[in-house]
Amino acid sequence: MNQSVTVPKGFKATGVACGLKKTNALDLALIASENDCAGAGVFTTNRVQAAPVIYDKEILGKNRDAIHAVVINSGCANACTGEDGMRDARDTARAAANALGCRANQILILSTGVIGVRLDIAKVRAGIAQGAKSLSSEGGNDASKAIMTTDTRPKVFAIRNSQFAIGGMAKGAGMIHPNMATLLSVITTDAKISPARLDRALRIAVEKSFNRISVDGDMSTNDTLLVLANGASGYEISNAQDIEKFTEALTRVATDLAKQVARDGEGATKFVEIVVSGARAEKDAARVAKSIANSPLVKTAIYGADANWGRVVCAAGYSGVEVEPNKMALWFGDVNVFKNGTPTQYNDADATRAISNAEVFIRLDLGMGEASTTMWTCDLSHDYVTINGKYRT
Amino acid sequence: MNQSVTVPKGFKATGVACGLKKTNALDLALIASENDCAGAGVFTTNRVQAAPVIYDKEILGKNRDAIHAVVINSGCANACTGEDGMRDARDTARAAANALGCRANQILILSTGVIGVRLDIAKVRAGIAQGAKSLSSEGGNDASKAIMTTDTRPKVFAIRNSQFAIGGMAKGAGMIHPNMATLLSVITTDAKISPARLDRALRIAVEKSFNRISVDGDMSTNDTLLVLANGASGYEISNAQDIEKFTEALTRVATDLAKQVARDGEGATKFVEIVVSGARAEKDAARVAKSIANSPLVKTAIYGADANWGRVVCAAGYSGVEVEPNKMALWFGDVNVFKNGTPTQYNDADATRAISNAEVFIRLDLGMGEASTTMWTCDLSHDYVTINGKYRT
Repeated sequence: MNQSVTVPKGFKATGVACGLKKTNALDLALIASENDCAGAGVFTTNRVQAAPVIYDKEILGKNRDAIHAVVINSGCANACTGEDGMRDARDTARAAANALGCRANQILILSTGVIGVRLDIAKVRAGIAQGAKSLSSEGGNDASKAIMTTDTRPKVFAIRNSQFAIGGMAKGAGMIHPNMATLLSVITTDAKISPARLDRALRIAVEKSFNRISVDGDMSTNDTLLVLANGASGYEISNAQDIEKFTEALTRVATDLAKQVARDGEGATKFVEIVVSGARAEKDAARVAKSIANSPLVKTAIYGADANWGRVVCAAGYSGVEVEPNKMALWFGDVNVFKNGTPTQYNDADATRAISNAEVFIRLDLGMGEASTTMWTCDLSHDYVTINGKYRT
Repeated sequence: MNQSVTVPKGFKATGVACGLKKTNALDLALIASENDCAGAGVFTTNRVQAAPVIYDKEILGKNRDAIHAVVINSGCANACTGEDGMRDARDTARAAANALGCRANQILILSTGVIGVRLDIAKVRAGIAQGAKSLSSEGGNDASKAIMTTDTRPKVFAIRNSQFAIGGMAKGAGMIHPNMATLLSVITTDAKISPARLDRALRIAVEKSFNRISVDGDMSTNDTLLVLANGASGYEISNAQDIEKFTEALTRVATDLAKQVARDGEGATKFVEIVVSGARAEKDAARVAKSIANSPLVKTAIYGADANWGRVVCAAGYSGVEVEPNKMALWFGDVNVFKNGTPTQYNDADATRAISNAEVFIRLDLGMGEASTTMWTCDLSHDYVTINGKYRT
C-alpha cells in the first residue's frame, strides 16, 4: 500500500541505486510536485552544518513559495566538506533542475551518511537522471527506502480526510536528539496553504513530535525536516479552524514518524515512553525527561530488564531542574516503585515484568506543579555498540 | 607495596567482608587517624543526594577540625532511602565511634552500590566491629579493594617528599561525569594544615583532576572526595610557598587517581585523552571537550577503531559553544585529519592506527583563541552494556 509522500495528490517520487552505498541498495530519492509548492523547513541547531542544510536555508529564505522538488541521498552526509561541499550541493540542485525542467532555486536537497567525505557528484548526477525517468505516484515507498542508513525499516505515514492529505517519510537510527528537527524527514501535503502559515504549523508540529525523541543524545550536522504543500487538493487553509485542523493533522503525521524513529533507534530492542508530570513548568518536565532518556545507565538497565529504578531518580537529580526526591513518585508500568523519597513495598518481579516488555512505560511525578511532558526513546543494546563501532566499514 | 591512604604517618586502614556484596568480597573499609584531622570534602551536585552525602556535609560544616575516621561500604549506595537512610547513616557513624573510641561527629561515611535499597545495618555494625580490630598501617590496599564495585582493579596512589606524604584511593567505573567530585575517593596526608586551607587546596586540585574525567555522562547521587590531614609529620603548611607546594602535590595525587578511574571505566578497552585548544575561554574548551568525551558515537567509533573523525567535529558543533568549522583543525594522534573546514589528504591507515592503540589522543584546535583544556575518558564497548544491563543481578 502506498503510505508515503505520494499519498497527497500531485506528488511523484522514486528511489534509485546510484552507487553511493557500497551494497547496491537504493541510495537516492526524488520527490517532485506537479505544481509549485509552499515550502518550510526546520534544521539542526548544530554549529557544524552540512552543505545541504546551509543550501536549503538559503533557498527557503528566498524562494519558499515556488519549491518544485527534493533530492535526497544516503551514503554520504556532505558535511565537514567546506567550499567543495557547497559546490557539490549546488551541482546536485542544478542537475535535478535540468532533469525535472525547473530552476535550480526550486530544488531542495538532503544528504545523510558519513561525515567528512566528498559527495561523488558523478554518481549523484547519474542517479538523478535515472530517477527523473522513474518518478511515479506510487513511488513513495521506494523513496522512503532510499533514504535509510542504519534504519532497519522504512518509516512512512499518511492520513487523508475529505479535504486534504498529508504523507511523510523519515530516516533516523543514530544521532537522534531533541532540538529542532532531529533527523531527515520530508512531509508532503496537497492542502493549499501559504508558506508563512505552513512554517508556523510545522514549528508547532515539530515541538510535539521530533523534539520529543532521543536515541543517543548526539545531534547531527544534517538534521532536517521539510514540508511541501502543492495545493493540488484545491482546499485552502486560511481560517482559524482550518489552520487548527491542518496543524493537528501535520502533528499527527510528524508524531507517528518520530515515534517510528525512536522505535527503530540503532540497536533498539525496546521502545520507551517517558512521562514526566508534576513539574513547575513544561520546560522543566522536558529537561528531566531528556536527562532520563539520554542516561546510558537507564537505557542499559532497560535493555537488560533490570528494574534498577534508582538510576531514573538519579538522572532526574542531575537534570539541572530543582527537583526534590521527597516529593517524587516513580512508576515502571503500573508498578509504583518509589514514593516520598523512599522505595515502596513493591514486588520486584512485577517491576521486572514491567520493563521486560517490548514497550516500556516510565512515569515520574515530580510533585511540584501541574506541567508535564512525554518523550520517546529506546534502550541501549550491544547492537548499538556494534553498529557504531564499525559504521564506515 | 603500600601505596594507599596509609602511606602518610599516623593513618591505619583495613578492608573487611561483612556480607553486603553477594560475592563475599571485601565490602567495608575503615580509615582511622591517631590524631584528630582537618577534614575537607567535595560532593555531587546531583539534586538527589544519598544519605551519607547529606550526613558528611553536616559533619564537615560543624566539626571539620576534629575528624577521626572514615567508614566506607560498597554494595549499597544508601540513596533514595529517605529518613530511614538518614537513620542508617547516623547508626553507622555511631557504631564506628563506639568501636574506635571517639565521638560520632568525628566520623565521616561513604556508601556506593545500588540506589534505592536500605543498608543492612546489622552487617555494617558487624563489619565495623571486625574492622576496628584489623586496622593496620599496612591496611591501605585492603581498604582500596573494599570500596570497589564494577572496578576491575583497586586505584591507589601516593607521593612523599622530605616534609610530608599524601596517599589516596578511589573507586569509579560507572556514573562518572565531571562536576564537582565525580566518584568516591579518600585522600590522606600527614601534613599539618588548617581546614580552611585544606578546603581551598582541595577545590583547586579537584578542578584539575576529577572534574576532567567522564565515563558515561551520568552523575551519581553519592560522588564524594574527602581529604583528611592529621599533621603527624609535624610539618605545617602555612606560608604561600608551602601552600603552593602542597596544592601541587594534592593535585598530582588527585589527577593520578582520576586518570585511573577513566582508564578503568566500565567496559573500557581504551584510555582517551582529549585536548581542546584555541578556545576563547577555558570554559568553552571544557564544554567542547565534555561534549566529545560524552558522545556515544565518538566513544563507540574509538572502541571499533573506526577513524570516523566527523563525529568529533559534530560533537563540538552541538556543544553549545559558538565554534566555526572553517577555523577548526583536528588530529587523531599526530595525524591531522581535518583543517579549515575540509578533510586533509591524510592516509586512512595512519588515522586508523592512531585510534587502535590502548591510549588514544585526540586534539581539536578551535582556532578562535588561546585557551585550552584536557579531558580523560574511555571508549564505549559491548562490556559497558553487559555490565550495566545486569548490574543488580
